[in-house]
Amino acid sequence: MRIGVLTSGGDAPGMNACIRSLVKTGAGRGHVVVGIERGYAGLIDGTAKELGLADVDGISRRGGTMLGSARCKDMMTSAGQARAAEHIAALGLDGLVVIGGNGSLTGAHVLASRADVTAPIVGVPASIDNDLGCTSLAIGVDTALNTIVEACDRISDTASAHRRVFIVEVMGRQCGYLAMRAGIAAEADCILYAEKHISEDELVIKLRALIRMSFADARAKRRVLIVKAEGVRVPTSRLVERLNVHLEEDAPGVDIRETVLGHVVRGGAPSVTDRVIAQRLGFAALQVIEDGVSDVMVGWEPAGGVGDKTDDHSIRRVPLTTVLEETARLLDGTSPVTQGRLRLLAQVEGLLAL
Amino acid sequence: MRIGVLTSGGDAPGMNACIRSLVKTGAGRGHVVVGIERGYAGLIDGTAKELGLADVDGISRRGGTMLGSARCKDMMTSAGQARAAEHIAALGLDGLVVIGGNGSLTGAHVLASRADVTAPIVGVPASIDNDLGCTSLAIGVDTALNTIVEACDRISDTASAHRRVFIVEVMGRQCGYLAMRAGIAAEADCILYAEKHISEDELVIKLRALIRMSFADARAKRRVLIVKAEGVRVPTSRLVERLNVHLEEDAPGVDIRETVLGHVVRGGAPSVTDRVIAQRLGFAALQVIEDGVSDVMVGWEPAGGVGDKTDDHSIRRVPLTTVLEETARLLDGTSPVTQGRLRLLAQVEGLLAL
Amino acid sequence: MRIGVLTSGGDAPGMNACIRSLVKTGAGRGHVVVGIERGYAGLIDGTAKELGLADVDGISRRGGTMLGSARCKDMMTSAGQARAAEHIAALGLDGLVVIGGNGSLTGAHVLASRADVTAPIVGVPASIDNDLGCTSLAIGVDTALNTIVEACDRISDTASAHRRVFIVEVMGRQCGYLAMRAGIAAEADCILYAEKHISEDELVIKLRALIRMSFADARAKRRVLIVKAEGVRVPTSRLVERLNVHLEEDAPGVDIRETVLGHVVRGGAPSVTDRVIAQRLGFAALQVIEDGVSDVMVGWEPAGGVGDKTDDHSIRRVPLTTVLEETARLLDGTSPVTQGRLRLLAQVEGLLAL
Amino acid sequence: MRIGVLTSGGDAPGMNACIRSLVKTGAGRGHVVVGIERGYAGLIDGTAKELGLADVDGISRRGGTMLGSARCKDMMTSAGQARAAEHIAALGLDGLVVIGGNGSLTGAHVLASRADVTAPIVGVPASIDNDLGCTSLAIGVDTALNTIVEACDRISDTASAHRRVFIVEVMGRQCGYLAMRAGIAAEADCILYAEKHISEDELVIKLRALIRMSFADARAKRRVLIVKAEGVRVPTSRLVERLNVHLEEDAPGVDIRETVLGHVVRGGAPSVTDRVIAQRLGFAALQVIEDGVSDVMVGWEPAGGVGDKTDDHSIRRVPLTTVLEETARLLDGTSPVTQGRLRLLAQVEGLLAL
Repeated sequence: MRIGVLTSGGDAPGMNACIRSLVKTGAGRGHVVVGIERGYAGLIDGTAKELGLADVDGISRRGGTMLGSARCKDMMTSAGQARAAEHIAALGLDGLVVIGGNGSLTGAHVLASRADVTAPIVGVPASIDNDLGCTSLAIGVDTALNTIVEACDRISDTASAHRRVFIVEVMGRQCGYLAMRAGIAAEADCILYAEKHISEDELVIKLRALIRMSFADARAKRRVLIVKAEGVRVPTSRLVERLNVHLEEDAPGVDIRETVLGHVVRGGAPSVTDRVIAQRLGFAALQVIEDGVSDVMVGWEPAGGVGDKTDDHSIRRVPLTTVLEETARLLDGTSPVTQGRLRLLAQVEGLLAL
Repeated sequence: MRIGVLTSGGDAPGMNACIRSLVKTGAGRGHVVVGIERGYAGLIDGTAKELGLADVDGISRRGGTMLGSARCKDMMTSAGQARAAEHIAALGLDGLVVIGGNGSLTGAHVLASRADVTAPIVGVPASIDNDLGCTSLAIGVDTALNTIVEACDRISDTASAHRRVFIVEVMGRQCGYLAMRAGIAAEADCILYAEKHISEDELVIKLRALIRMSFADARAKRRVLIVKAEGVRVPTSRLVERLNVHLEEDAPGVDIRETVLGHVVRGGAPSVTDRVIAQRLGFAALQVIEDGVSDVMVGWEPAGGVGDKTDDHSIRRVPLTTVLEETARLLDGTSPVTQGRLRLLAQVEGLLAL
Repeated sequence: MRIGVLTSGGDAPGMNACIRSLVKTGAGRGHVVVGIERGYAGLIDGTAKELGLADVDGISRRGGTMLGSARCKDMMTSAGQARAAEHIAALGLDGLVVIGGNGSLTGAHVLASRADVTAPIVGVPASIDNDLGCTSLAIGVDTALNTIVEACDRISDTASAHRRVFIVEVMGRQCGYLAMRAGIAAEADCILYAEKHISEDELVIKLRALIRMSFADARAKRRVLIVKAEGVRVPTSRLVERLNVHLEEDAPGVDIRETVLGHVVRGGAPSVTDRVIAQRLGFAALQVIEDGVSDVMVGWEPAGGVGDKTDDHSIRRVPLTTVLEETARLLDGTSPVTQGRLRLLAQVEGLLAL
Repeated sequence: MRIGVLTSGGDAPGMNACIRSLVKTGAGRGHVVVGIERGYAGLIDGTAKELGLADVDGISRRGGTMLGSARCKDMMTSAGQARAAEHIAALGLDGLVVIGGNGSLTGAHVLASRADVTAPIVGVPASIDNDLGCTSLAIGVDTALNTIVEACDRISDTASAHRRVFIVEVMGRQCGYLAMRAGIAAEADCILYAEKHISEDELVIKLRALIRMSFADARAKRRVLIVKAEGVRVPTSRLVERLNVHLEEDAPGVDIRETVLGHVVRGGAPSVTDRVIAQRLGFAALQVIEDGVSDVMVGWEPAGGVGDKTDDHSIRRVPLTTVLEETARLLDGTSPVTQGRLRLLAQVEGLLAL
């Protein structure tokens, strides 16, 4: 079989390991893997090349994606979609693996739904924000988290040296997963996340109380770390400004700073978890295509009971429509998964979650 | 309540985050946490001190254990156990959390079984080898894996520069988990793991075939990486010696090296996963004691279906006897978990698992 | 002797190793070291404690400063300076080591010039910007550089995946040293540094030419990395805005992003160079006090001819007035050292320095 | 001009940045750079290809060497040398840059001395051991040091948790530079280095005294770290064995471990210093060839007085014969540079150097 693969949307560490997995296990099973460049853009203009073992040697440890990626407007038009469908046929593909996030999977579903696309289309979840439904982890999340927490650790050095309040804004437009996890690991004093809609005034009142309490004992506490998700409505600079008004009164000698961890968090050598998940999901996507199944995503679902150690029950195939619906609920905060997170944070006492 | 905590056996990254979690959530719930030094040795001689928030500030990111650890022979004698029981009473403990591996949990079970110990005893799994039953991950595993793979990546740089065969031996006396996971992530060509008992001659035959095939094309392949678990019976140096005899014939111009990743792998700043698991398990252990339950371990079990994202169904309490039995089966290779791993490796084609 | 030590101004990785060096070598020579907290603020209010070997055990690898730091307005008033002088006497200090940057060394000179201060005052250069005269390296520079370049490497992963222009702004208000060094190491296409005063229009013209040329071959080049010093007058966002106007025309399909590496760069485990320099300078400062010399800084000056390997000729004592004058010239760009840099960058062809 | 480049001997982080520097600055000056594969082996059999900008894009951050390396026995025979000379002509080279250590530079000198080689031959020092004369730093040293100290930091976590004596053996067959620097940075208690020839019995006596003293106070000190150069005659295992005999008597409850940091230290992403030095030396080598000078090495020599900041006086050209002589003196311990190190270590009190 000839199996196409493309990476689309924001790049995520581990995408390369997933590509390699397709090429390596594909070669062992007699398939030819065709790498499509720059996401759907390359599918629309037919930029592609066959990938051999030598092409993917050593790429698992590289961040980014060797195939390139792009946000592709043309893929949102029916003309673009038609040309993508044509190239699937022209390239002789018997299947297509789409590695990416919400937008990329939407595109995969559109293609899979077309009458003129007979090759199975399979999605693989990759998004450092972990904002996709039907998979407990997406490729890239674990690496991004570790990068964020390393940055928070560095900031804690400085903040402790100076008795500072630090607001660190992390990625996650509509999803506070990164903020929550990173905050727990970095010994944050407070986590502000997108799903909990709290008014600006209430935020300021609660944060002032936290600051007063934290620095009450001049000796004990040396820094306050607030991890804030990108999606929280109140801008970070606005928050700093308002807290600053009362800071000398709330905590004499203390100052406040902000930092935004943006693109710095996206690249880097993938963690072991991201490399393993990526390779497992890549192999699972291959099997889906061999089975002739289309319009599904392979999700990473640790099995209940026996757990991760079994390593053989932890992938499931979910229809892309289900994935996209669950993702939408995740993003608007109505998902039971989101509710579960709120319960968890309420439990971990002492950690203020706003 | 007064809650004791000790870390015992080999140290593991994340132990400190677990201690902090007890102190921090304990303080929020009105408990006093007493840190016992150097594992059971400190319990036997009563070396302990109360821990306040300032004592645990910033320790989540430190490797090792702030309480110290020790392998304690006295704990294997009934005299030693009696003194440990006495000190539990003398220190006024209403519960004791034991953070450690197989030996430590055995000790915990012994204490919990004594008539003169009324305080609940709870185990928290920590062992970089991931050789404990009834938990999908133990504290320290994820960090150790990332450290191993970083080392393998460095070795790949050198091995590729020189066209070399490299055998890297990793920890895991009776358990090939680290070798398996690290091998997958590091793009190893072959994994030798303890659970699969293969004769020395067969090993040599298969590895020679791998080497011949890998370097057959003088251009394509630049290194062969073999990740070997400590528990595999054939010593690494013996393997190198035997392969070396035929190397010039099998792959002209190629040489072979070995390296043992020992203590280097044990310390280091804990990964996010290890910090999060450690904090969650610490809090769960506290709840067990509040519930008056004894002789159990809190295990990390990703819930089926909704997955990790819910974050609130993923801990279960398992009787220590069950844990110790399942651990024994894991270590002798008869566990279904081990069988699952073998199936997995057989699936990931192209990766030779011996 | 009783020797005081304080860290002042922005914290820098390596400050802790310097403190430890004073305590450790001081102990060997019979001195008592007194740690003064939060920089000059602690000297003015007399917050200090004696430091023993156990206090400094393992701190060399920690970022920040164990003594705390602060920018201290009171030190700029004669009342504040008088109280600082009083406390030098009240604490019984026979000498004071000030570890910090330009402002801190200015404060040290002020104290050393007072008639009521008889104890020798010695400065140790610490500033991640490397903006101090009379020392080739300040404590913290090497770590900051490595942190910046790691971030640039991560950004390159993403930028290459997307065919992007990336402007990365690094610290260095009046000194482009970090930008220059980091740019060379990160394979930047262009470095914008503070010392070279170039008009906004000229910048835009040259950067547009660079972008056009870099992406002229659609296959070859995948990213343009511009490293910009904080001190360059044109704001980064303004630059992005102006380049963006023509981007589709200059390089179709390419987009542009910016990121500011601020506080993330300051902390972190010190590099080997920073730890070694810090310990050497700490010991040298101790010797200065033993010799009864005041109002000097110990500078790190690799010796000509025999080089760094000798390791015993590479520290010199420079009067603080000389240091402050040379620093001023460095900051306004008239120093021969700055001229030397310009020559260097002109030589390294292909690297655009604006 | 056509300029050849090869990397030879043990690989060192930074070699790739040096290759890139030749290609990049070479392209700007109208030269063609020819990459010769696997060191002298590739020169002898004529394996080479022209390198373009795309070939070297992004390689500065990769460990190892993209050209491959090998220890080449044929280069020690006159037949091999003759064939190498023939290929220099056959490849049309107007100059050859040899990046490597002592053996590689010896080979370069041999070629430069031949009547049938008219193209200039220039050496660039690369050796993680820093065992080359006439350069204060060789490419790869700074990265190796940082990797060693990271490993020591991890080991300190474990050693402190267990109250352990740890002997860490680092590379440096005849040169204790790595041990000395790493020991200072890692807060070692003792450094054993090759240049100081001390008897086994004396070693044991002094180390026993250190251990007794260090653990005398049961509370204060938690680990003893001994960093030992590979070249020290007494084997590490022998030392462990002898110290172990008395350990329970010298320090009750303490145990002793050893670890050898071998190949793990060689690879990895180059540090900023290694990347900058490599690029500067690469450019300097190019200038040497343009000047028609042969049989020299470009050495990294921080200039006296103005220091590193000037960045334009810090490279010198040294005849290869001088380099090889000075290297020999370094390796047998008679060099004034070695004497300087001994003085330094004697000064840094409290650090036992044996």
